[in-house]
Amino acid sequence: MSSKTSRGGWACWMAIALSAPLAAADAEADVVSRMQREALAGNAAYRLVESLTTEVGPRFAGSAGDRAAAAWAEGKLRALGFPKVWIEPVTVPRWVRGEARGEIVSPFPQRVELLALGGSVGTAEEGIEAEVLGVENVAAMARLGDEAIAGRIVFFTERMRRTDDGSGYGDAVGIRSRGADEAVKRGAVAVLIRSVGTDSNRLPHTGATRYTEGAPRIPAAALSVPDAELLERELASGQPVRFRLFLGSRSEGEAESANVVAEFPGRERPGEIVLLVAHLDSWDVGTGAQDDGAGVAVVVEAARLAARHSPGGPRRTIRVVLTANEEFGLSGARAYAAAHAEEAPSHVVAVEADFGAGRVLTFRTRFAREDAAAADELAVRLAPLGIPSAAGDARGGADLSRLRPLGVPIVDLSQDGSLYFDIHHTDNDTMDKIDPANLHQVTAAFATLAEWAANRSERLRSLPPEPATP
Amino acid sequence: MSSKTSRGGWACWMAIALSAPLAAADAEADVVSRMQREALAGNAAYRLVESLTTEVGPRFAGSAGDRAAAAWAEGKLRALGFPKVWIEPVTVPRWVRGEARGEIVSPFPQRVELLALGGSVGTAEEGIEAEVLGVENVAAMARLGDEAIAGRIVFFTERMRRTDDGSGYGDAVGIRSRGADEAVKRGAVAVLIRSVGTDSNRLPHTGATRYTEGAPRIPAAALSVPDAELLERELASGQPVRFRLFLGSRSEGEAESANVVAEFPGRERPGEIVLLVAHLDSWDVGTGAQDDGAGVAVVVEAARLAARHSPGGPRRTIRVVLTANEEFGLSGARAYAAAHAEEAPSHVVAVEADFGAGRVLTFRTRFAREDAAAADELAVRLAPLGIPSAAGDARGGADLSRLRPLGVPIVDLSQDGSLYFDIHHTDNDTMDKIDPANLHQVTAAFATLAEWAANRSERLRSLPPEPATP
Repeated sequence: MSSKTSRGGWACWMAIALSAPLAAADAEADVVSRMQREALAGNAAYRLVESLTTEVGPRFAGSAGDRAAAAWAEGKLRALGFPKVWIEPVTVPRWVRGEARGEIVSPFPQRVELLALGGSVGTAEEGIEAEVLGVENVAAMARLGDEAIAGRIVFFTERMRRTDDGSGYGDAVGIRSRGADEAVKRGAVAVLIRSVGTDSNRLPHTGATRYTEGAPRIPAAALSVPDAELLERELASGQPVRFRLFLGSRSEGEAESANVVAEFPGRERPGEIVLLVAHLDSWDVGTGAQDDGAGVAVVVEAARLAARHSPGGPRRTIRVVLTANEEFGLSGARAYAAAHAEEAPSHVVAVEADFGAGRVLTFRTRFAREDAAAADELAVRLAPLGIPSAAGDARGGADLSRLRPLGVPIVDLSQDGSLYFDIHHTDNDTMDKIDPANLHQVTAAFATLAEWAANRSERLRSLPPEPATP
Repeated sequence: MSSKTSRGGWACWMAIALSAPLAAADAEADVVSRMQREALAGNAAYRLVESLTTEVGPRFAGSAGDRAAAAWAEGKLRALGFPKVWIEPVTVPRWVRGEARGEIVSPFPQRVELLALGGSVGTAEEGIEAEVLGVENVAAMARLGDEAIAGRIVFFTERMRRTDDGSGYGDAVGIRSRGADEAVKRGAVAVLIRSVGTDSNRLPHTGATRYTEGAPRIPAAALSVPDAELLERELASGQPVRFRLFLGSRSEGEAESANVVAEFPGRERPGEIVLLVAHLDSWDVGTGAQDDGAGVAVVVEAARLAARHSPGGPRRTIRVVLTANEEFGLSGARAYAAAHAEEAPSHVVAVEADFGAGRVLTFRTRFAREDAAAADELAVRLAPLGIPSAAGDARGGADLSRLRPLGVPIVDLSQDGSLYFDIHHTDNDTMDKIDPANLHQVTAAFATLAEWAANRSERLRSLPPEPATP
């Protein structure tokens, strides 16, 4: 927060305060100011990420780390003074990465760095060797004849753009999520992709690939960006390029995991819930510091701050849900939405932290039409943190995708994602990448939202339910 | 090169030119200007790095890649029109990395990323498990009693500073080169070091460690920076930290390698040699793009440019030596100095390119006292490239360390090394890190030096020989 932004924010607050009962507005402004200053000056969120990444580390759905993470979360939430902490069991698919090896066989033999995409089937013991067909993405492959594709390893070369808002990811991720499923229809024997990321490190980016139920499945792996560019250069030689791939990946049925839930019950309206969500699982590479250790730390510390700075406790309930298996199928989000469907109208607002540790740049809301003015109240409170409102409706992250259709009001606190995809889903997602000052600005923003939604006089109204996405 | 620097440089040139026979000075200035423009606008050096890293890749001393690199170099030098190209056999030690695995066993089990240091002995099949002692560096270890060290895995935590000139490397590299040799004297069972590098990627930095001949040897490995910081956090918990290490490294005697030598013989004074040196070998991780593919490309293209822009050919001989095994014992530099010791007084100047692809920032000379004014001639020619002279004597790089004591005049074209140690000796040393504009400025600088030294009226004089370093 620059001091300039801060002064502007408080001037704005005071202008509004002058048109309201003065003592009450002053008291409320004091609460918000104290809470924000505590978030910015403190170190609690940073210590939480540090604890999770050091004491637990990677925590892929169904793994020993996943179980350790749930135990860690339960213990931390109790130790931090949440009056209610409980576990909601979640069944998750169990996928095991196994070993991965790849090499360019010809024209110029070189080993490459690659990772199986999440969910990929493995190869046979002897691996797969075939000629490589380079093609930008699924759309470009559709323009080729089957004879160009059949028997080949299809290599998707699309480059991801760097953007603040992560839109470059949405544009490029189709090669990862759908590439193998589309290529197998055309007779390909395996798929390689250029990592969906914005860095140039020799560390591949994993992430889920999806197969059509009942259809044939081929192995799929991501090359690091330098290795993808090496493979492109070999293709540019004009000579046939042969590649050998071994993946030891396999599915092993299902495993038990958990949503870890904790709340500060409301002192006046315990049945009205302010919901803060982050996911406890991570990929099996890296230590899930940014994705989503940062989010876990932010929502836990924000809830604690908001409750502590609510005089006498929050009027409404502030609930934190640390979900199971966001990365490989949204198991926890689905389970929460299913188990709490009847309670959906009790959720007065939901917000998700799953975009790393970059500063909150803007916010957006998705409120009922009658609550349009409520966004202005929030704007006044977020202004001291340098967070203006942005155009468009809030959408929530993946873990809110099952609650949004139920009509739950949503706020997006949109973080700077310009560096997020440098380390997303890689071995590089480690503690040292977290900037404490940024993380604490995010914590202050989430705390501000939670305190406001929990204590304002009227609850935010539910929206009309909409058809759920499949 | 900024246009401002360029104008200043040429103004300076013209001022000097006006005090000399005008036509000759003009003609010479034209030559230099055309040559520099060709180096800056062309793409030849970049294409050479691309070819070497794509078609050969890693080329560790004594490996198949090393042999492929020598064949590549011989073919390229002939194809580029060097009239004389030959091989000088070099015997190199053969060390094989093998597999490396490490994990923190307690208090918080986590696997870590590490690489054996070059030359490290391996562990037994079952690995080594012991308690970790964290200590900053060799000097700090010297202050501890043997009872703190005996039976432990000593973990050196020293952080390398980022600097333009690489001085941070010299300050920190002792933990890598001497750590194991010093720790074994105190009873340690293995050594881990924080990677000697300035990045924060989960990619360890290798590099040679040295053992005292005949003394006991213990395994030594480098943790990536994020993993070193993880291990430090576990140590900070105050609980005993146990670590398990497996290294499959081994020495396999000696192997044959080669210095690849090429020259444009002088048309007037073929017995006077302008020497340009870079090393052809690389570590076995990465593809040796920066270290030292860039240097290879620079000296080859600079020699070619200097010869081509010398009217009628260079007056003196311009010789390129691409040395064997710089990384693991300077085998090629030793062999060249030994084989050409009698020819040492024939070397009128030597320059080495082994500091990546960052721009040349300054230059220094080590000339005979009678040639002090020659540095000013060079300054005028380098000024258009934005390269002023710096204080102090030139020292040359590692590959000149055996020629310098023989009295060969040396020039340092000192490159910007601020990013060099982000990827130095890691798997990240790949083509995509090379900035063509910077590489071509370096090429222009080396070509300028070569053309000047090859064609100036008087040769640069030899210096008095000095005692050789062991």
